[in-house]
Amino acid sequence: MASDIEIARAAKMRPISEIGEKLGIPQDALENYGSTKAKVRADFIASLDGRPDGKLVLVTAINPTPAGEGKTTTTVGLGDGLNRIGKKAAICLREPSLGPCFGMKGGAAGGGHAQVVPMEDINLHFTGDFHAITSAHNLLSALIDNHIYWGNALGIDQRRITWRRVMDMNDRALRQIVTSLGGVANGFPAEAGFDITVASEIMAILCLSHDLADLQRRLGDIIIGYRRDRTAITARDLEADGAMTVLLKEAMQPNLVQTLENNPAFIHGGPFANIAHGCNSVIATRTALKLADYVVTEAGFGADLGAEKFFDIKCRKAGLQPSAAVIVATVRALKMNGGVAREDLKAENVAALKKGCANLGRHIDNVKQFGVPVVVAINHFTGDTEAEIAAVKEYAATHGVEAVLCTHWADGSAGTEALARKVVQLAESGAAQFAPLYGDDMPLFEKIQTICRRIYRADDAAADKSIRDQLKKWSADGFGHLPICMAKTQYSFSTDPNLRGAPTGHIVPIREVRLSAGAGFIVVICGEIMTMPGLPKIPSANQIRLDERGQIEGLF
Amino acid sequence: MASDIEIARAAKMRPISEIGEKLGIPQDALENYGSTKAKVRADFIASLDGRPDGKLVLVTAINPTPAGEGKTTTTVGLGDGLNRIGKKAAICLREPSLGPCFGMKGGAAGGGHAQVVPMEDINLHFTGDFHAITSAHNLLSALIDNHIYWGNALGIDQRRITWRRVMDMNDRALRQIVTSLGGVANGFPAEAGFDITVASEIMAILCLSHDLADLQRRLGDIIIGYRRDRTAITARDLEADGAMTVLLKEAMQPNLVQTLENNPAFIHGGPFANIAHGCNSVIATRTALKLADYVVTEAGFGADLGAEKFFDIKCRKAGLQPSAAVIVATVRALKMNGGVAREDLKAENVAALKKGCANLGRHIDNVKQFGVPVVVAINHFTGDTEAEIAAVKEYAATHGVEAVLCTHWADGSAGTEALARKVVQLAESGAAQFAPLYGDDMPLFEKIQTICRRIYRADDAAADKSIRDQLKKWSADGFGHLPICMAKTQYSFSTDPNLRGAPTGHIVPIREVRLSAGAGFIVVICGEIMTMPGLPKIPSANQIRLDERGQIEGLF
Repeated sequence: MASDIEIARAAKMRPISEIGEKLGIPQDALENYGSTKAKVRADFIASLDGRPDGKLVLVTAINPTPAGEGKTTTTVGLGDGLNRIGKKAAICLREPSLGPCFGMKGGAAGGGHAQVVPMEDINLHFTGDFHAITSAHNLLSALIDNHIYWGNALGIDQRRITWRRVMDMNDRALRQIVTSLGGVANGFPAEAGFDITVASEIMAILCLSHDLADLQRRLGDIIIGYRRDRTAITARDLEADGAMTVLLKEAMQPNLVQTLENNPAFIHGGPFANIAHGCNSVIATRTALKLADYVVTEAGFGADLGAEKFFDIKCRKAGLQPSAAVIVATVRALKMNGGVAREDLKAENVAALKKGCANLGRHIDNVKQFGVPVVVAINHFTGDTEAEIAAVKEYAATHGVEAVLCTHWADGSAGTEALARKVVQLAESGAAQFAPLYGDDMPLFEKIQTICRRIYRADDAAADKSIRDQLKKWSADGFGHLPICMAKTQYSFSTDPNLRGAPTGHIVPIREVRLSAGAGFIVVICGEIMTMPGLPKIPSANQIRLDERGQIEGLF
Repeated sequence: MASDIEIARAAKMRPISEIGEKLGIPQDALENYGSTKAKVRADFIASLDGRPDGKLVLVTAINPTPAGEGKTTTTVGLGDGLNRIGKKAAICLREPSLGPCFGMKGGAAGGGHAQVVPMEDINLHFTGDFHAITSAHNLLSALIDNHIYWGNALGIDQRRITWRRVMDMNDRALRQIVTSLGGVANGFPAEAGFDITVASEIMAILCLSHDLADLQRRLGDIIIGYRRDRTAITARDLEADGAMTVLLKEAMQPNLVQTLENNPAFIHGGPFANIAHGCNSVIATRTALKLADYVVTEAGFGADLGAEKFFDIKCRKAGLQPSAAVIVATVRALKMNGGVAREDLKAENVAALKKGCANLGRHIDNVKQFGVPVVVAINHFTGDTEAEIAAVKEYAATHGVEAVLCTHWADGSAGTEALARKVVQLAESGAAQFAPLYGDDMPLFEKIQTICRRIYRADDAAADKSIRDQLKKWSADGFGHLPICMAKTQYSFSTDPNLRGAPTGHIVPIREVRLSAGAGFIVVICGEIMTMPGLPKIPSANQIRLDERGQIEGLF
C-alpha cells in the first residue's frame, strides 16, 4: 500500500475553477492561490442570501484513543461517497495548525484514499489565515502595552490583563514570560505569555462570525483586562477593532480545495477543541449549505466535547439545523475502551470489544438527545475480524441505530457508498428535530451542571464559591445568556483521562472559568488544559526536508 | 490632487498574466495569488540560466531627512519612464514590513502617480513571505530551547544563545524578556527577546540566496550560540535546516505585481538596512535581469549605507554588474542638509541649498569610487523654485554629473522620460567598471576602516580590544573573507544623526560586532541600533478600518 503522501502526490488535481464550477461558483468569485487553492469572495457569499440550505451532516466520534478513529478521513470519505451516489455534496473541515507539524502529530488532511489536497500546502502556510489571526492577535497585545506606556489613560490594571500573545508554534519556553525588561524605553515589566494560535479568541471569533461587520463587532467586544475597580476594558476601548478587522479581511473568506476524487472541500478556521468550540468556520459551513445539497462537517475530539459544542455553540449561534450525525468508531479503539493494551490490539477480542462498546452507546444516546438521528461508521482497519465487526453492528442495533462498515481509507468513495446511502435516508426521513441541550436563559452554573449530568453522566459539577461568584457577576454584567464551552480531557467522559468506557458517579471539578466576550461563550476549565504545546524529544522537524527533486519529505 | 490611495484605487490593473507576458513569462510559470499578484515559479527561474543579463540600475539617495527624498517613488517612476521610451524594463523593490503600518510610517509602495499596486495587499500580508520567515525563525528558536529541555546533548551554553525570536509587529514590550518561567515543564528560565521580522538573519539569507539549495546551506550555517568552550553551534547541528527550508519554499519565489502604468514590478524580500544589507532579493534581481533589458532597483537609506552595501554585499556575492546609479535628491532635503529648519522649507533659500549640496556631492563621489556612472534625479516638489533647481543642476555639473528634474509623482512616466534617456545613455556608454570597495582578503578591521575613511570620510574607526580580538577570532575560524555590514545612523555620514551635510574629521566608534554566518557578513554596530520598534502615542492602527463599502481606510 502506498503511503499517504505518495497517494496525495499521485492525485490528479483539477484546476480549482473546475471544483468551484461543480458548486456553481463563477470563476470571478474565486481568489486563486496557485491553481489548486482559492478563497471564495465575500461579495459572492453575500449574494447567496435567501437561497435554501442543503442538508448538514455532522461527523463526530467515540472518545479518542491512541489507536485512532479517523474522523477527518471519514468526513472526506463520506463527502466522496455522497458525490458517488449522485448527490451534490461538499465537505467542511478545520485548517490544520502549523506548529504541531514540527512536533509529533503530523498533518491533518485525512489519509489513504480519503484525503484533501494539496496536502503540503494545507498543512503548512495554506492561504495565510492563521498568520493573519496571529498578526491581529499580537497587534492587540502591542496596543495594550503601548497604551500603558504612553500614560494609560484607560486605567488598565497591568496585573489584570487577560489578553496574552500567540504564535503558531509549539514553544513551551513562551508559556510564561516576563516582558518589558531593560528599562524605561521598554515599558513596565509584567508577567505575560504566549498560547498557540489555534487557542486565540480571535480564531474562535473568526469561526463564529457571519460576515466582516459581525467580525468587527465581536473583535471590539474582546475583553483585554480590567481596571482596579474590576470594570472591563475592551479592544474597542483601545480603538483596535478596525485595524484587526483589516488584517482579517482576506482570512474571513473560506478556502476551497478538493478531495482526491476532485470533490469540493472547504477548509476554513481551526479553533482549539478544548478552550474553544473546535469546528470550522460558520461562514464556510453556511456558504457550503447554500451551494451543495449535502454538507459534511466534523467537530473536534469525541462527541462528548465536539458534538456538544457543535450543537450548543455553533448550531445555536449560527441557526444551523443538522439533519444527521455520523459517529465514527474503530474496532481497535473500542477494544482499547474495553481495556485491551495497545500492543495487544492485533488479536481478536470480541469480549473486550463488547465491553468497550459502552463508550459508543453513550455517545449515540447523547447525540440523540439533541434531536439528531445517528448512524455509526465503522472505520475499517486491516486487522479487524468479521466477528468483531458483527459485534459492533449488533451493539449499535440495541441502541436503535445502524453501524455501517466503511473502507474509504483503502477504497475511497467505493468504501463509503453504503454509509452515504444511510446518511441520505436519515437526512431525507425528516427525523431530525434539532434543539440545543439547554436554553439561553438557564443560569450559567445550571448550564454547566446540565452538560455534566446529561452528557458526561456525572453526578454533579463542583466549583468553589469564587467561581460561582464569578459566574454570577458575569450574569449581572449581561453575559448570562452565553453558552458554555467546556474544556476537559478528550479521553474520557470524566475528567480522568484513564477512565475509559462509560463511567458514572463521578464529579466534574471546575478549576477556572474564562469569559470570551468576543467569541460569545464562557470557557469552563476542568483539569489541566494546555494552550501552548511543547515539542517532543525528537521533533518531526528533524526529518522534514526537501528531497533532491524539491519535494517535501517527512511531513505527514 | 487625489491622495495616494485614491490614485491607487483608480488604477486600472491588468491581470498579472498580462504583466508576466510583457517579460515573456508563460502563464504556467506564475502561481497566482488573486488576479493581480503572482509568484514566479522556481523551475521557470532555473530554466533561465545561461540567458544574457539586462542592464542593472541602482536608485540610491542623499542622507534622508524628514523632508523626504522619494527613492521608491523614483524607482517606480524610472521603471515606467524606461518603458515609456521603449525599453523592456522591470523594477525590483523590497517588500514592506507589516508592523510599521500600524505605527507611524504607513506603507511603502511609492506615491502619487508612481506606485506599485495592489497597494493594500503589498502593505499587509502580501503573499505571506514575511510570515514564512517569522515561522522559520521561531521554529529554530523553539528547537533550541527544546534541545536544552530534553538534555542538551550539544552542550549549548544557555547564556550564550545569540538567536532571538522575531515578530512582524512594533512591540517594545518584547525587546527584552525572560522565558521559561513557571517550573520544570516550561524549561530553564533565560533572558531572551524579539526583533522585528525584517531584522531576522533569515530575511537577509533569503535575500542573498541563489536558490533553495543555497538557502538550505545558509540556513544550516546560522550560528545560534556557543558552548562553554566558545565553540559555535549551528542550525545544522540542531537538524533545523531542512524544516526551515520547507517553510520558506514558496517565500523563495519572487513576487510579481505591476506599477500604476501596468509595468512589471518584482517585490521580494525586505531586510533591514541597518543590521542587514537593505536590498530586495538576489533571486528577484537576477530573474528580472534575465527577463528585462533594464532592471531598476533600490537600496535602503542614503548611499553611504545603502549603495555601499548594495555594491559590497549584494553585487559582490551575487556577481551583479551595475551599469548606472541614480542618486535621488530633493530641494527640500538639500535645504535641510544646509541647515534650514523644517518649518522654513517652503521659502526659497538658494544659499542654504548650495550649502546642503555638499551632502549630494560626497554621495556622487562615493558612488563613482565603485566604478559606476551617476546621474542625479531631482525629485520635484510643488514649492521648488526655478533658481533652486538650477542651483542643484549647476552643483552636480561641478562633480561631473548631470542632474535631471523628475515629476513622476505628479505626471507618472511623462515626468521621468528625461531621466530614463540619461540612464540609457550612461548604461549604454559602457562606462561602468564596477568593483567593490575592498577585496575579500583584506583583514576584517581594515575593511571597516576602509569604509569609514573612504565612504564616511572619517579619520578612523575606533574599537575596543575585545572587539578587535573578536574579529581576529572570526578570521581564525574561517570568516575573515566575509564582507562588512555597517549599522549606523542613516541621517549622517558620521554616527551623530544631527551632523548633516558632509562632515569630516570624525571618528566612527564601533560598539559591537555580530557574525551573521548564514547571511555571510559581519555586522558592525556603531551607536544605538533599534531592532524592535515601538508604536507612537497615537498609532495609525487607531485610524485603520474598513469603510462602509468594505474598502480599507487609514492605510497609506
